[in-house]
Amino acid sequence: MKGEIDYSLYLCTDRGLMTSATIEESVEAAVRGGATVVQLREKDCSSREFYELGLRVREITARYGVPLFVNDRADIALAVGADGVHVGQSDLPCRAVRAIAPGMLVGVSASSLAEAVQAERDGADYLGVGAMFATGTKTDAAIVSMEELEAIRRAVSIPIVVIGGINKQTIPAFRGKGIDGAAVVSAIVAQPDPEAAARELLQLWKS
Amino acid sequence: MKGEIDYSLYLCTDRGLMTSATIEESVEAAVRGGATVVQLREKDCSSREFYELGLRVREITARYGVPLFVNDRADIALAVGADGVHVGQSDLPCRAVRAIAPGMLVGVSASSLAEAVQAERDGADYLGVGAMFATGTKTDAAIVSMEELEAIRRAVSIPIVVIGGINKQTIPAFRGKGIDGAAVVSAIVAQPDPEAAARELLQLWKS
Repeated sequence: MKGEIDYSLYLCTDRGLMTSATIEESVEAAVRGGATVVQLREKDCSSREFYELGLRVREITARYGVPLFVNDRADIALAVGADGVHVGQSDLPCRAVRAIAPGMLVGVSASSLAEAVQAERDGADYLGVGAMFATGTKTDAAIVSMEELEAIRRAVSIPIVVIGGINKQTIPAFRGKGIDGAAVVSAIVAQPDPEAAARELLQLWKS
Repeated sequence: MKGEIDYSLYLCTDRGLMTSATIEESVEAAVRGGATVVQLREKDCSSREFYELGLRVREITARYGVPLFVNDRADIALAVGADGVHVGQSDLPCRAVRAIAPGMLVGVSASSLAEAVQAERDGADYLGVGAMFATGTKTDAAIVSMEELEAIRRAVSIPIVVIGGINKQTIPAFRGKGIDGAAVVSAIVAQPDPEAAARELLQLWKS
């Protein structure tokens, strides 16, 4: 799928925040509403559960033609046939993931210009830049200023997805800044109607 | 290294129990004392820390010619160039590890005859059978009776390493039972002199 990814509306799962009964329902509602990428992020379950969930979510994203990234676990990404791996600064280094999973897309989280430049140098396919705003999902994340985001945009040529406090109120702040997508967690999964929420966010992002 | 592993004294690391200042020191003392296999087991650190530690431990085990297994994380095993992965019943299935890491040895934990037979069928290279005795390391582990161990030994042909409460007091219980090795945690890493402890355990196992 390399080179053809539409990063516009990038869903990150969160079983702790979701209104749906299962991750699968949460993901399916989001992609029906228009989420263009799904990242499966599971920190509090066993590897076996993560793997089995990954297989089920892979089936859903494949059916809708949406790329699937797995957070942190390159082995689970490989085992479920995901399109890519997303790594933070505390996860496996981008180069290590490339070495063990040559065909995979690799996204890297960056919260500074230095991290962003390094990630591009390491061969990242896209950046997740944030947290842009304070958020309940990641309370310890550094806040990236709009000026730093603009400096990152000037410095790297790979796609940038903004993350952290992205919702319908904050999306307009990114207009005209050359950002490729909005990564959201609670603005979709925590809404009473995740499908409608995704649809509204995608329209707002594209407008 | 396939097919030539000496499982006699199988060290599992545990940074919470070790008397050494670092995992590296703990591992080096154990292999100097005669540990024949090392399994790196890290549940409470970031993937990046696990990876970087794995690289350093890989350097030590390679220097002593001792095979290195990584617990649970096939991606980290691949990234650090370990010899194998050890998976429990809540980790990636053996077959999934085989598929993504074809050259790796795969060990599987089994605490019953059914799990042991299934693991061999799935292509496991060896079994870790236990917990044989109550242990402070894994307080929720099921106890495997000596009768069940003997039934497992009769049912499978792959090497068996016993684990859980294995120490100099309990090792004699396995004499003449066709078991290939003793996996130990605290009986080495928690001792005042891990090297001497490993030496004594190996002598006892081989006697």
